[in-house]
Amino acid sequence: MPEPAISSRHNPRLKLAAKLRESRQRRATGRLLVDGARESLRALEAGVEGVEAFVDVEAAGDRVSEALEELQRRGVPILTTSHAAFEKLAFGERVDGVVLVAQAKQRTLDQLKLSSEPLIVVIEGVEKPGNLGAILRTADGAGVDGVIVVDPRVDLFNPNAIRASVGAVFRANIAVATAHEARKWLQSKEVSLFATRPKAKRLYTEADMRGAAALILGSEAEGLSPAWDSSSVQAIALPMLGIADSLNVSAAAAVLLYEARRQRLIASET
Amino acid sequence: MPEPAISSRHNPRLKLAAKLRESRQRRATGRLLVDGARESLRALEAGVEGVEAFVDVEAAGDRVSEALEELQRRGVPILTTSHAAFEKLAFGERVDGVVLVAQAKQRTLDQLKLSSEPLIVVIEGVEKPGNLGAILRTADGAGVDGVIVVDPRVDLFNPNAIRASVGAVFRANIAVATAHEARKWLQSKEVSLFATRPKAKRLYTEADMRGAAALILGSEAEGLSPAWDSSSVQAIALPMLGIADSLNVSAAAAVLLYEARRQRLIASET
Repeated sequence: MPEPAISSRHNPRLKLAAKLRESRQRRATGRLLVDGARESLRALEAGVEGVEAFVDVEAAGDRVSEALEELQRRGVPILTTSHAAFEKLAFGERVDGVVLVAQAKQRTLDQLKLSSEPLIVVIEGVEKPGNLGAILRTADGAGVDGVIVVDPRVDLFNPNAIRASVGAVFRANIAVATAHEARKWLQSKEVSLFATRPKAKRLYTEADMRGAAALILGSEAEGLSPAWDSSSVQAIALPMLGIADSLNVSAAAAVLLYEARRQRLIASET
Repeated sequence: MPEPAISSRHNPRLKLAAKLRESRQRRATGRLLVDGARESLRALEAGVEGVEAFVDVEAAGDRVSEALEELQRRGVPILTTSHAAFEKLAFGERVDGVVLVAQAKQRTLDQLKLSSEPLIVVIEGVEKPGNLGAILRTADGAGVDGVIVVDPRVDLFNPNAIRASVGAVFRANIAVATAHEARKWLQSKEVSLFATRPKAKRLYTEADMRGAAALILGSEAEGLSPAWDSSSVQAIALPMLGIADSLNVSAAAAVLLYEARRQRLIASET
């Protein structure tokens, strides 16, 4: 085994990277950490700019090899790190020996690329990074065109959000905006807006989500802000047949996005 | 304000209750902790036997009053506790001043009560308490008749599972079994079995889930065990239109359960 480039937990480059665990440091530098070989690969494939990668000298396996190949192909500096030093940088338990330092891309609404009849998801005021990541993963699976994150109370590139999204947070089409900007922009694009409301009369399965459509999701604790109290937002209901009065926001997102996808798949067949 | 019954963090009754944070202690005593006023209320309403309740002397609000009323009505001893002592017992950040010690009920398959055409969810080998709880919450919302938890690697009454379920873990119809027992029992009841498989040809929306049906969900890391490799299990596909190759298990559960519910609601209209 070759000598690692970094063997001390006190290496300045390693310590500087580890500081990106703090949201403040991420905002100050515009940089973020991607944990894991698969996630790093996906981030690079999604167009994220790699700054440098720390790789545990004991790391092994197909995913690690694939990530290393892609890093080399893109000319991202690879810093082999002793296992003890790597642990200082690594996050959580699912660490597989690769941590990528990347340059974050902040997109605006006008940078979103949309098809002619896009399916869009709007996530307002989400508080839990795990929920944000889970919604992004589901949106990716459901083939959503664009994601608008409105007034987030959590860093889009929080490590838990990245992990829960299994890298989907790096897909090209995510913009951050205020609620007012997002609503105005969606209306200017003639996108139909849908939001679940406890007292809505129309079931979500009865709403026509086949054309240009955006599903608006509120925060876990407070639901949607008054910015969406508009007649342009169609109220839809999710059946709640048990004792609880709502679904977890990421479960609601899954139900709604896959219903929109179901309607679109049927429409494309006929 | 009256003097609290328990003012010391070293009170033996408080310390014994706090030990129930450990899975080992829960198994040894058959007891568990329910955190929160709303959750305690739901647990009692679902038929859980309350042993005693610790209530922060500073706790206030409608939910707390409601919980106290229900505890009194059922004759569950209420131990008022100083704020400092309560914090020793309380779990996580969302504490609202009530912790209930309850007697766990372990149900068997034959104790499940089912309608003539039940919708059942089978959760195999789930590892993350948060996922288990989220699935139970969604199952409650979708009006599932029965839940079978197969070979769990997590304690059903783990505090994170209880919280994520918003109390749904206490609804009457959850049984624990091995995979083999569950499959045999479901087949003996002539329940159609469905499981998502990456290579399945039939979309989940094309499967008929209106009669007696069970949706089988695998673990996050390993999917389903070979116990379900049977021609009696119908393979269905969830469209994956992005870069990820699967949904989070609780998102998949939400999509599948609400599709089954959609089919049933349409069937009941015609």
